[in-house]
Amino acid sequence: MKIESGIELFRKPLYLESGRILEPYQIAWTTYGKLNSYRDNVILVTHALTGSHKPVKEEGCEIFNNGWWDTLIGDGKAIDTKRYFVISTNVIGSPFGSTSPISPINPLNPTNELYRFRFPVITIRDMIRAQHILLQSWGIRRVKAIIGGSMGGMQALQFGVDYPNFAEKIIAIASTWATQPWTIAFNRVTQEAIMRDPKFQNGNYSIDEVAKNGLDGLAIGRMAGHISFLSHHSMKKKFGRNYLKDDGFYDINGRFQVDSYLQYNGNKFSKKFDPLSYLYLTKAINIFDLSNGFESLQHALEGVVAKTILISFSGDLLFLPSELEEVKEAMEEIGKGDLVKYFEVNSNYGHDAFLIEFDKFQDIIKNELKN
Amino acid sequence: MKIESGIELFRKPLYLESGRILEPYQIAWTTYGKLNSYRDNVILVTHALTGSHKPVKEEGCEIFNNGWWDTLIGDGKAIDTKRYFVISTNVIGSPFGSTSPISPINPLNPTNELYRFRFPVITIRDMIRAQHILLQSWGIRRVKAIIGGSMGGMQALQFGVDYPNFAEKIIAIASTWATQPWTIAFNRVTQEAIMRDPKFQNGNYSIDEVAKNGLDGLAIGRMAGHISFLSHHSMKKKFGRNYLKDDGFYDINGRFQVDSYLQYNGNKFSKKFDPLSYLYLTKAINIFDLSNGFESLQHALEGVVAKTILISFSGDLLFLPSELEEVKEAMEEIGKGDLVKYFEVNSNYGHDAFLIEFDKFQDIIKNELKN
Repeated sequence: MKIESGIELFRKPLYLESGRILEPYQIAWTTYGKLNSYRDNVILVTHALTGSHKPVKEEGCEIFNNGWWDTLIGDGKAIDTKRYFVISTNVIGSPFGSTSPISPINPLNPTNELYRFRFPVITIRDMIRAQHILLQSWGIRRVKAIIGGSMGGMQALQFGVDYPNFAEKIIAIASTWATQPWTIAFNRVTQEAIMRDPKFQNGNYSIDEVAKNGLDGLAIGRMAGHISFLSHHSMKKKFGRNYLKDDGFYDINGRFQVDSYLQYNGNKFSKKFDPLSYLYLTKAINIFDLSNGFESLQHALEGVVAKTILISFSGDLLFLPSELEEVKEAMEEIGKGDLVKYFEVNSNYGHDAFLIEFDKFQDIIKNELKN
Repeated sequence: MKIESGIELFRKPLYLESGRILEPYQIAWTTYGKLNSYRDNVILVTHALTGSHKPVKEEGCEIFNNGWWDTLIGDGKAIDTKRYFVISTNVIGSPFGSTSPISPINPLNPTNELYRFRFPVITIRDMIRAQHILLQSWGIRRVKAIIGGSMGGMQALQFGVDYPNFAEKIIAIASTWATQPWTIAFNRVTQEAIMRDPKFQNGNYSIDEVAKNGLDGLAIGRMAGHISFLSHHSMKKKFGRNYLKDDGFYDINGRFQVDSYLQYNGNKFSKKFDPLSYLYLTKAINIFDLSNGFESLQHALEGVVAKTILISFSGDLLFLPSELEEVKEAMEEIGKGDLVKYFEVNSNYGHDAFLIEFDKFQDIIKNELKN
């Protein structure tokens, strides 16, 4: 499998939903496989909150959680790179190479001042606009499919609404059409933990220092995040009531295995992800509503012409199965029932299922790409 | 209804499950109604994590959330103070008058040094031992019932195991027989947020300052707590996607109504509850397992002779209905099926149902007290 990657700089302004602009801006990308001469074998894979343009594992890659869909993408896999030219881009706002709050306001200007809180709020719509521009600049006018989970699924759905003729198929997994308050609340906990951390310094933290030692606020928030990704059942199965054998049971600092899991992952994450980016990306997730600017979800879906495949997981607490089911129902109500397929995958793994339970949904993707 | 309250000082040591002792120690209490001459009309009401010995609303009372079971307790109410003498005590470790981490190590000694992290880890078993001693000191050898929700339910169940002949009836609500990792994880988030807050000063914070301005770590943790008390459904119903009208939609600091709810309640709570007590009480909850020291839950329940009434709520995510159902099943397995009744109340209010959905379970309590 041929892998290429790079960062594209755009000097023209990116017009944002908020009315603000990013100018210039850049997009980090990776491609897998070969673009055919008709340029019509493209699949765009969109990433989740803490994902990146590195869905396939790369040795020595320092990017957090790279290889997040390694099982799905490759030669002969569900997203088959022998047939398809797979593109993944780092979304605007994410810290792995695309323009984000910790980018210089003007990368061409030697003063190199970073955006930090001067960065504009970006939306899912803005993320996909930037990706659309990148693909157009490569002469790609239409793609076979856009596939993503969680925030990646939001992008896929938004593509179906904003650029109806761009994708033949939309595959949204473990996602929603409008973020609900339970999920907003989890994001809020992390936002508060970051912003109240004195070391965050209202956004003026030392980037090197935080990369080296992490930020407690982000670590704490990530621990809450892990609760939301899992479920009562998956935690029980994974950890039970196992207590660390070197910790005293009656020691106030004694820990269960689940405690130590949260600490380890929270601390690790806080050195690998930028706290300002986390604030901006969770903001984008929280304000996401496919019906923004429309009278209703039905109205938003009026223009959709892509085949729309929706995959939810029964145990997902962040994005309930009913939320994607509502998209199916709305499409049926407006006479687009033939375009939509809805799958509810039985899983106890909570939201994380889209990064774990490949056995249970990769065949759906494989089949739907064939049809 | 006659209300009396006070603080009882015990000079003899309280022997703790950990092997450590508290000496001396004190217990804050409130009573409602009148003790009859046979001293056999007593109901003990046990409180939850952030509850207190003030289940009935008192004007001018500064204790957080006082009146938490105001609907249930009073003349003619489900727990009828015309018939019963209702006792509620503040548990050991809680900051509302009983001995806790912010108590002086020796209240009789003028140096008045506070325990802080020298306070011993206390368990549910220790909490009830102290209550049992208090009631015995009042000449009460047996009570009609012990009733509590959440951590209060743990105490009720533990009474049934440790002092089999003490209570005629045990009523445990929205509780568990062993805290599961999902719930431990939520407590861990708060514990980490508290301990990593620089103002916490490893437990040596200024108590006056924290009471005045709150502690960010506790506020953040409480926000996570609120998520665990509610549910996807109850949050959707309560908040929807309502956005604060004075906040900009594309402002990074703009908030949904749910954000503002969490901020308000988190901040308020952090001025009303002591962070060290929070650490110790959540520790007690996390290590609670009715089968500790026994081979199994069945073995732990062998000695139970009280009628055991278990009430769970369908939407409770902290303590799943199945957890109390397992107590029922275990009692059936050991031939005590005639002693146990299990009720699953249909509710979308999550764990908070035991403080909200009185209409749905007060009749169960009323009827079971009669039988």
